[in-house]
Amino acid sequence: MVELHNDERLDHLLAENLRIIQSPSVFAFSLDTVLLARFVYVPIQKGKIIDLCSGNGVIPLLLSQRSKAEITGVEIQDRIYDMAKRSIAYNQLENRLTMIHGDIKDMPLQLGHGKYDVVTCNPPYFPTPKSDEMNKNEHLAIARHEIFCTLEDVVRVSSQLVRQGGKVAFVHRPGRLLDIITLMRQYRIEPKRLQFVYPKVGREANTILVEGIKDGNADLKVLPPLFVYNDTNEYTKELRKILYGEE
Amino acid sequence: MVELHNDERLDHLLAENLRIIQSPSVFAFSLDTVLLARFVYVPIQKGKIIDLCSGNGVIPLLLSQRSKAEITGVEIQDRIYDMAKRSIAYNQLENRLTMIHGDIKDMPLQLGHGKYDVVTCNPPYFPTPKSDEMNKNEHLAIARHEIFCTLEDVVRVSSQLVRQGGKVAFVHRPGRLLDIITLMRQYRIEPKRLQFVYPKVGREANTILVEGIKDGNADLKVLPPLFVYNDTNEYTKELRKILYGEE
Repeated sequence: MVELHNDERLDHLLAENLRIIQSPSVFAFSLDTVLLARFVYVPIQKGKIIDLCSGNGVIPLLLSQRSKAEITGVEIQDRIYDMAKRSIAYNQLENRLTMIHGDIKDMPLQLGHGKYDVVTCNPPYFPTPKSDEMNKNEHLAIARHEIFCTLEDVVRVSSQLVRQGGKVAFVHRPGRLLDIITLMRQYRIEPKRLQFVYPKVGREANTILVEGIKDGNADLKVLPPLFVYNDTNEYTKELRKILYGEE
Repeated sequence: MVELHNDERLDHLLAENLRIIQSPSVFAFSLDTVLLARFVYVPIQKGKIIDLCSGNGVIPLLLSQRSKAEITGVEIQDRIYDMAKRSIAYNQLENRLTMIHGDIKDMPLQLGHGKYDVVTCNPPYFPTPKSDEMNKNEHLAIARHEIFCTLEDVVRVSSQLVRQGGKVAFVHRPGRLLDIITLMRQYRIEPKRLQFVYPKVGREANTILVEGIKDGNADLKVLPPLFVYNDTNEYTKELRKILYGEE
């Protein structure tokens, strides 16, 4: 049993045998987030993973199927944190998945430095606009705009939380590629794997996936490109495999 | 008529109605160089273009077919500079194409700051190894290793030569992507167009093409990926068009 509030839905979570609470007016996960959860390397048997700007907990839920590690999600919005908590309970994953309601900037002090094997984050993509341009829906505005945390906050906090040699993975837009990798190097997360996601063949990339290693040495690999749609505007075989586990 | 020395050949230059002197033991151009010559934006009717580390002049020769600009090539190795000179003469392009025998680091003083609309360079890809690991062929070693100029020299000199708002384009390996874009920003060349070249579908990228604008504002586009070979190890249609002009 699960309690659903207002326009919340209990959606199926893709290939996994999981359900997740979503709400179009509060928070629904994006394709980018799913791609990040598939892209990041995770320890399989044990370890500690933390997901920042966790939203309704989609990354912790997806990673729980790839790893037996302890997984923590951090979400600043009470309303969305509460959705994540209920989803975790519904899926009976409370023993391995923990949500923290708080500001990511407080986490290094609260949780300690260098304690995590893996840090993931799908941060807000857009700088804060003038208040009259901002999305009137506060929940969506906070998830999309750098209101409570900037990209630099995200990278700095990730670097503080991860152990030496641990991995940090982000998803973002190509327009911020230079900023994100400059910040990663500044905070000693050496970018090691970079993948570009293209909506279809012949189009510019619209998403980047990047993973770095804390104090790793310089040796970047650019993975094969990922195409989302084919010529007939259906998901490519590659994407269907990622989303639904189809072979 | 053209004078050929030792193992030099007078090769056809791809789709163009041009010939170029090459020598397997001294210098022969690579696919990367051709891709750079097709990637860079050039002014069509007039302007000034300079190509650094120009080798046997392949980029000036190729660009002469895309642009009526004045084009200068700079090459430090006398033997290879001489090949470029003879190729330009053979193609009767001396009125628009000039080779300079010199060190790129001397060019800003020699040619002036901010005088060029476009700067191109296919720099040496590899850091200087220990002398016992170096290619015994001095000509090839200089073209491939950062013996006479480092990546930072190339970016700094390019930035000095190009005018404000002018374009600078490089080709390099993905392993140096972070270095090259960090240096570009450091020397006020804002990366604007980035393209990854993959040997074939499903493989990691092995070449990057990047173009920036002097004092441009931050707005990077990641162009559609370029695949070199198809499943049967022939050039893709895309590549044949670039190389041979086939439609």
